[in-house]
Amino acid sequence: MNRESLSCLLASLRSGEISVEDAMTRLRDLPFEDLGFARLDHHRSLRTGAAEVVFGPGKTASQLQEILSRIAEKHGRALATKVPLDIASSVSLPEAVYVDDCGILRVGSNHLLHPDWPVAVVCAGTADLPIAREAEETARYYGVAVTCHFDVGVAGLHRILEVRPELATMRAVVVVAGMDGALASVVGGLVPCPVIAVPTSVGYGASFEGIGPLLTMLNCCAPGVAVVNIDNGFGAAYMAFRIASGGLV
Amino acid sequence: MNRESLSCLLASLRSGEISVEDAMTRLRDLPFEDLGFARLDHHRSLRTGAAEVVFGPGKTASQLQEILSRIAEKHGRALATKVPLDIASSVSLPEAVYVDDCGILRVGSNHLLHPDWPVAVVCAGTADLPIAREAEETARYYGVAVTCHFDVGVAGLHRILEVRPELATMRAVVVVAGMDGALASVVGGLVPCPVIAVPTSVGYGASFEGIGPLLTMLNCCAPGVAVVNIDNGFGAAYMAFRIASGGLV
Amino acid sequence: MNRESLSCLLASLRSGEISVEDAMTRLRDLPFEDLGFARLDHHRSLRTGAAEVVFGPGKTASQLQEILSRIAEKHGRALATKVPLDIASSVSLPEAVYVDDCGILRVGSNHLLHPDWPVAVVCAGTADLPIAREAEETARYYGVAVTCHFDVGVAGLHRILEVRPELATMRAVVVVAGMDGALASVVGGLVPCPVIAVPTSVGYGASFEGIGPLLTMLNCCAPGVAVVNIDNGFGAAYMAFRIASGGLV
Amino acid sequence: MNRESLSCLLASLRSGEISVEDAMTRLRDLPFEDLGFARLDHHRSLRTGAAEVVFGPGKTASQLQEILSRIAEKHGRALATKVPLDIASSVSLPEAVYVDDCGILRVGSNHLLHPDWPVAVVCAGTADLPIAREAEETARYYGVAVTCHFDVGVAGLHRILEVRPELATMRAVVVVAGMDGALASVVGGLVPCPVIAVPTSVGYGASFEGIGPLLTMLNCCAPGVAVVNIDNGFGAAYMAFRIASGGLV
Amino acid sequence: MNRESLSCLLASLRSGEISVEDAMTRLRDLPFEDLGFARLDHHRSLRTGAAEVVFGPGKTASQLQEILSRIAEKHGRALATKVPLDIASSVSLPEAVYVDDCGILRVGSNHLLHPDWPVAVVCAGTADLPIAREAEETARYYGVAVTCHFDVGVAGLHRILEVRPELATMRAVVVVAGMDGALASVVGGLVPCPVIAVPTSVGYGASFEGIGPLLTMLNCCAPGVAVVNIDNGFGAAYMAFRIASGGLV
Amino acid sequence: MNRESLSCLLASLRSGEISVEDAMTRLRDLPFEDLGFARLDHHRSLRTGAAEVVFGPGKTASQLQEILSRIAEKHGRALATKVPLDIASSVSLPEAVYVDDCGILRVGSNHLLHPDWPVAVVCAGTADLPIAREAEETARYYGVAVTCHFDVGVAGLHRILEVRPELATMRAVVVVAGMDGALASVVGGLVPCPVIAVPTSVGYGASFEGIGPLLTMLNCCAPGVAVVNIDNGFGAAYMAFRIASGGLV
Amino acid sequence: MNRESLSCLLASLRSGEISVEDAMTRLRDLPFEDLGFARLDHHRSLRTGAAEVVFGPGKTASQLQEILSRIAEKHGRALATKVPLDIASSVSLPEAVYVDDCGILRVGSNHLLHPDWPVAVVCAGTADLPIAREAEETARYYGVAVTCHFDVGVAGLHRILEVRPELATMRAVVVVAGMDGALASVVGGLVPCPVIAVPTSVGYGASFEGIGPLLTMLNCCAPGVAVVNIDNGFGAAYMAFRIASGGLV
Amino acid sequence: MNRESLSCLLASLRSGEISVEDAMTRLRDLPFEDLGFARLDHHRSLRTGAAEVVFGPGKTASQLQEILSRIAEKHGRALATKVPLDIASSVSLPEAVYVDDCGILRVGSNHLLHPDWPVAVVCAGTADLPIAREAEETARYYGVAVTCHFDVGVAGLHRILEVRPELATMRAVVVVAGMDGALASVVGGLVPCPVIAVPTSVGYGASFEGIGPLLTMLNCCAPGVAVVNIDNGFGAAYMAFRIASGGLV
Repeated sequence: MNRESLSCLLASLRSGEISVEDAMTRLRDLPFEDLGFARLDHHRSLRTGAAEVVFGPGKTASQLQEILSRIAEKHGRALATKVPLDIASSVSLPEAVYVDDCGILRVGSNHLLHPDWPVAVVCAGTADLPIAREAEETARYYGVAVTCHFDVGVAGLHRILEVRPELATMRAVVVVAGMDGALASVVGGLVPCPVIAVPTSVGYGASFEGIGPLLTMLNCCAPGVAVVNIDNGFGAAYMAFRIASGGLV
Repeated sequence: MNRESLSCLLASLRSGEISVEDAMTRLRDLPFEDLGFARLDHHRSLRTGAAEVVFGPGKTASQLQEILSRIAEKHGRALATKVPLDIASSVSLPEAVYVDDCGILRVGSNHLLHPDWPVAVVCAGTADLPIAREAEETARYYGVAVTCHFDVGVAGLHRILEVRPELATMRAVVVVAGMDGALASVVGGLVPCPVIAVPTSVGYGASFEGIGPLLTMLNCCAPGVAVVNIDNGFGAAYMAFRIASGGLV
Repeated sequence: MNRESLSCLLASLRSGEISVEDAMTRLRDLPFEDLGFARLDHHRSLRTGAAEVVFGPGKTASQLQEILSRIAEKHGRALATKVPLDIASSVSLPEAVYVDDCGILRVGSNHLLHPDWPVAVVCAGTADLPIAREAEETARYYGVAVTCHFDVGVAGLHRILEVRPELATMRAVVVVAGMDGALASVVGGLVPCPVIAVPTSVGYGASFEGIGPLLTMLNCCAPGVAVVNIDNGFGAAYMAFRIASGGLV
Repeated sequence: MNRESLSCLLASLRSGEISVEDAMTRLRDLPFEDLGFARLDHHRSLRTGAAEVVFGPGKTASQLQEILSRIAEKHGRALATKVPLDIASSVSLPEAVYVDDCGILRVGSNHLLHPDWPVAVVCAGTADLPIAREAEETARYYGVAVTCHFDVGVAGLHRILEVRPELATMRAVVVVAGMDGALASVVGGLVPCPVIAVPTSVGYGASFEGIGPLLTMLNCCAPGVAVVNIDNGFGAAYMAFRIASGGLV
Repeated sequence: MNRESLSCLLASLRSGEISVEDAMTRLRDLPFEDLGFARLDHHRSLRTGAAEVVFGPGKTASQLQEILSRIAEKHGRALATKVPLDIASSVSLPEAVYVDDCGILRVGSNHLLHPDWPVAVVCAGTADLPIAREAEETARYYGVAVTCHFDVGVAGLHRILEVRPELATMRAVVVVAGMDGALASVVGGLVPCPVIAVPTSVGYGASFEGIGPLLTMLNCCAPGVAVVNIDNGFGAAYMAFRIASGGLV
Repeated sequence: MNRESLSCLLASLRSGEISVEDAMTRLRDLPFEDLGFARLDHHRSLRTGAAEVVFGPGKTASQLQEILSRIAEKHGRALATKVPLDIASSVSLPEAVYVDDCGILRVGSNHLLHPDWPVAVVCAGTADLPIAREAEETARYYGVAVTCHFDVGVAGLHRILEVRPELATMRAVVVVAGMDGALASVVGGLVPCPVIAVPTSVGYGASFEGIGPLLTMLNCCAPGVAVVNIDNGFGAAYMAFRIASGGLV
Repeated sequence: MNRESLSCLLASLRSGEISVEDAMTRLRDLPFEDLGFARLDHHRSLRTGAAEVVFGPGKTASQLQEILSRIAEKHGRALATKVPLDIASSVSLPEAVYVDDCGILRVGSNHLLHPDWPVAVVCAGTADLPIAREAEETARYYGVAVTCHFDVGVAGLHRILEVRPELATMRAVVVVAGMDGALASVVGGLVPCPVIAVPTSVGYGASFEGIGPLLTMLNCCAPGVAVVNIDNGFGAAYMAFRIASGGLV
Repeated sequence: MNRESLSCLLASLRSGEISVEDAMTRLRDLPFEDLGFARLDHHRSLRTGAAEVVFGPGKTASQLQEILSRIAEKHGRALATKVPLDIASSVSLPEAVYVDDCGILRVGSNHLLHPDWPVAVVCAGTADLPIAREAEETARYYGVAVTCHFDVGVAGLHRILEVRPELATMRAVVVVAGMDGALASVVGGLVPCPVIAVPTSVGYGASFEGIGPLLTMLNCCAPGVAVVNIDNGFGAAYMAFRIASGGLV
């Protein structure tokens, strides 16, 4: 609501065009109707730069099929994450591709690659691969120029040190690690770009389904590291996409 | 270590210049000595783009004074966070400025403002102010063009909706919130740029010293949101600085 | 046994239609009926205004069948929640209806609709549907005039803003949300009526089976919001029924 | 600002008593008023039926004084909760009353009593008194006809049984209990109206600052019970006010 | 309520002495009024064998003084636990004794010693002494013939082995231990009588204010061990008193 | 081996019926018998008054069979708890009885009933039955005169009030409850004998697999209540046996 | 690759048997070998004295087969832990041995036994056997002279006391225990050598998948005890190997 | 107990020298008395190689003084940890030395230095110094040849890499770290000797008083790392002493 529209409304009231009751009704929802409907009634892709991505778990094959086809119709492509194999198999959409090592179900092709959006995904162990691959595939979907370095955990420090020069040229680095989650701290101290840390539920005992690495990453001594939810490879890659693309629509 | 230096070492061995024992000794630490000393023996500002910042709690006034003066000597400025008033009062350094509403102790002036690094800091309630101010001051220290919107929590949604257009032009938005932490989710769905969420320990009961908003933010339904430690206003602003500055040294 | 039937019984006694002995016999098992494995609390409808509802999990089909038929015999209807499909299939009761998208097993028809008991059920995402539907079905069972708005989470804020005028006319709003649970805070700030929040176990990682949204909702910045157990759609709807019906038997 | 005063203002405008400009001036800050450190949500009373209440902890005396006087100016009264004695002593506002057994600081008188809004506040032990009193004072502030029964915990069951008939006539019952929190379950099974449970941080050891009774209350076997945050006497009373007043503005 | 009183009530109804409404009113509360008021309206000492004991923390000196004097008046003695020194100093009651190493404030003398109620209190370390002493004093208050063995933790196993023969003759053994809480398991495997374990908040780090020993004791491999709240020396001794006295009033 | 058989053996030795060597042979394995995978503690019945009971989960049918037959050989009977149906079916021992509603596998008959050892087992809901039955069967095994009252939770308070007079005559009461666990507090305030509380993992959401009722019971306002591990019906009954039998061998 | 083979390689180079190029080729992949999905850390045996051990869970049979064969090729043997039976069955490697009671999959023979590296593994109950056996097999793999004492929990204290003299001669003792975890404290007080405690997830209820014994062990009153992750039999045995071997390569 | 003493006892019984009752009495405690008193009735220094160390917190100055003087009298020296300055000031013992940067109070001189017991203590940040110093002082007390490297956290990785060669020659390394605790993982992958990790309560927010680094360390990807309690510098150094000294008395 700006001065003009408010002034207009009040003038109508004063001139008797509208009743006090009408004015009451319009003023009551004013902060929302006005802001909401003038500014918000756009597609999310207009508002935040990217269309909705579908969270797979708990959805039936037919629900997924309907949601994905609607999104793809509007935006030319669609993505669902963490889709189990048996559900994915029952979704019949032309152009649908199922990436079985990370449960991504994609409709349509990835965005064109932006070579000026370099992002790296690194992971600590082979058991973190499904989440690291989810990040990789998500990044590709948004046109990010993604490079991967898997199994470079800190128990053999030379592995991450060897790729440091390359990491230092990225716009963002996604670090995927379970158990001690220490790779995020080490990478955070090695590179100048933002680091997005993804704790994984890999491990046992005191990893407590990912609480261990989550806390490690939140407590990261090296600044420049922020954290997403446990096993949220998608979220980390999407954050990297926002960073690499300059955060502009 | 590159091929050349390894080749060189082995040639020396073959030619009898060095003994097998010498070679053993030099090879044993090779992955670290070489990578470490060729690549790592630089200041952190070279490696990650910013000099070390001092974590204030638990340090004595004399420890702080010594560390800050050393850093300021090398880098022209220095920053310490969460410094209690009584400790700060006992630090005597020329050019030291103590920002008492957030406990920042700065030596030297802030970096020159980069107008092309626009970042916003928003917070949910007045009780979140100390952390939001810590983020604001940190951002200024690094030359970030920071704008603040305080007390715009979701219980009165129009407050955040009103500033949405402005937020949508930022390179990054830092969201500071305690209690339900819901502001991060709302902002995440409104802006196209990366959002860095800071849970605060503000609140009581089931906020559990910040666990409540921490979980809210990690579970954020809107993608494009990553989280830093509870009350870590500094870390969020530093992350925003890395994002805004393009992550390049 | 409800007020009407008790009043009826006593009137028959007073008018001499039945003897004291007859009344004794019918009142004898009033407080509870011992089935060996379960003591039915028939007196509850007198005391709290609604007959006992059966918690399904862990009960065998034959236990459910016996308990439901006894309750239905006395009260004309009966309800069991969270009944698995295979158990429900093995219960053979005339008039039994199984609502498979939320696991409700109902014997007899719903109460007559009270148009002056308007209540809304809103949920954040499609994955919250089973719990939202449990709330909806429970509300209908008690005669509540329930309206539903599903998939109106805060990541696309205009969805909830659009239904705000309607929500503002309700006697109570039930908000069902998992993950960040932020919808409860937003609704709490938008409507004048009591809000009952239901955290769901939807999500993964830091949602910790519902702890995440539970804490969000307990820490809700907007007053006028109270919380029930994780996934307790029944409890929220029952609370809404008590509120809408004026809390009077 | 309430419905009446808005209606009044608009009527004055329509009748020509005031100009559009005057109305603009008075309506301009309608959504919120920016004090620099706090944005007051004056519009809230229109939207949700009650003006903003100030959460005391962490605010300085001068912040409290300014916020309360602004709210009181607009709405005729103002309330702050959990204000420490030393802070309250430094707030100098005419008409300010400090209720020291529960930390409530009130400006102006309570709303007129609505005899048709009967609500009870019960608490388990004398140590729960500060929170129970916070609920009582809050209820009075909103004009609720509140009755209190303190120290009626389940270890001496006859105490709560004795007041059951009275509780059964209420529009809502607020149950305040720490330690085992069992009083909520017992009351929930005894009354037909909605029960709002407030866990308190009273106790030691395994009460874990209120987690014990919080879980008890969330797991309440008796339906019709919803829970607010630990020690949130204000929130429970406000919820009761919404219920008792019919949830209508 | 027995058959006679119900029959009587119904006869009055049938004879027209009372109205249907009157009968309704009396029947509605019947299960409680009757059971409650006939059976429950006695002092707790009649019902459970011991008068109420006062939980000290959070009570003012004047509250304590009033409560203790009332109890002592009726029962000849009174006990308050965990009373801070400064509060106890301000309570002025003749016959009041303050036991400063455990915070017990007793009015009147202990019960006569029952030599046939032998109970032992053992504790692991000297830091557990305040809680062990609370148990000892409580036991004496109830006339239990209590013997103590302090500082017999399992790190020096011979200490507890040495007193085993004596422990084996007790009616109950109270084991007080913090940190690893292992003493409860060891004693549980050595004696034939019931063991009541009290975890203490002694320790640091992973003792988590008593959670460590609490879990140890709940997981006790040796059967015959039950647990009370952290630091609840009073509760353990009271349980031992119930056991030793045969649980009969 | 119990007191009788040891006394018998020693008498035979003293009377010359058996030689020192024979006695040596029989006493040699007194402290424990090494089966390779398990060391049986036959001496336990001498030391603590009851032979070892086998914890079923994780043991194979053949391991169970061997352990049980060895114990039964020495002590005339043996008991295993929480044995899954499929494992129990594969154990072939004469005299073995499998109680399928609680997973108890018993070899030999129960001890003779001691009418002077009256103990009650009460449970809150039908879902608590398996644990309550485990307690009941364990009590019978040790000769305890056990009475059961199932489904007497506090949501219908009259159910527990009705059996109060009977409970008041017991030597101990075992209270089994999940969800809010409030029954323990209520029973603790009603009876003069020791109460042993068993939290169950029944419930969902905030019951957190039994943490909810566990905390409720540890925080029990009524003294005279001690707690065993979640779902530990055996342990509670064994504790009750120790209490009822006077804790003497 | 171990010291011997490296020394050998360098000697061949110095003596002219192989060229610098040959040496380069063989050293090139020294730090790690990239299999695409896993980077093997062959250099680890030089750096820390032992080759990499493979964590089995989450790896496919073909991944395991490839990783193990590469390691075995370089080091003469390889070890994988916690390998499920079905996966192990699908790995076809000559010399592969699967130890089914603890899930160890070993390629090649164990190291030669070092009689001067005596280490004991003790466990509390038969349910701890899989973890204790994992420790035993790991120790053998590294040439440790391991002795085992299983089922020696503190409920029958004589069992551990009987083996104390033998334990006192060890270089290290590994204590494996679930539930109350008290065995670690008892052993810690009995022996002069370092004790490595392994909490197991054995148990139910308040053992919380091993949190119970983990806390017990961390809070161990007896010094000289350090703890590894829940169920980490491998890690404890490896630690014991490092201790027994003098920590020298 | 050996065969001889048992045979002896039985012969006495057979010959009538002792009664059956006497034999019963002696046999009942036999496993403990015999093992206990023959093997356990020694000082702890004989049994475990070191005299008791006093845990300071919660002890009064006079208690500390008495305990320390008794120990020093027997063993020539004594040590107390975590003693607050004000308590230490009130202890008057000749030869007592108070180390104020870590709260150690020592009576008598340290043990003679064993040059063949090299141990390193490293810590991540300056805030970890008090705990690292506690470890250093404890090590000296036991004669360990301790070297320290403070402030070598992973955010500046070259710092720890630089001292790697020296660490690689130690018998044990103690790693002290708070916040992310990642230093333990990095050191564990760099050295061949046992690593003992000490999480500290340094940090804020998600470090949760040390839970963060504790979990990191327990989940350590590098084998050869075991963990002690949060802030337990003493325990880690004592463990290192046991390792370095060969674990032999």
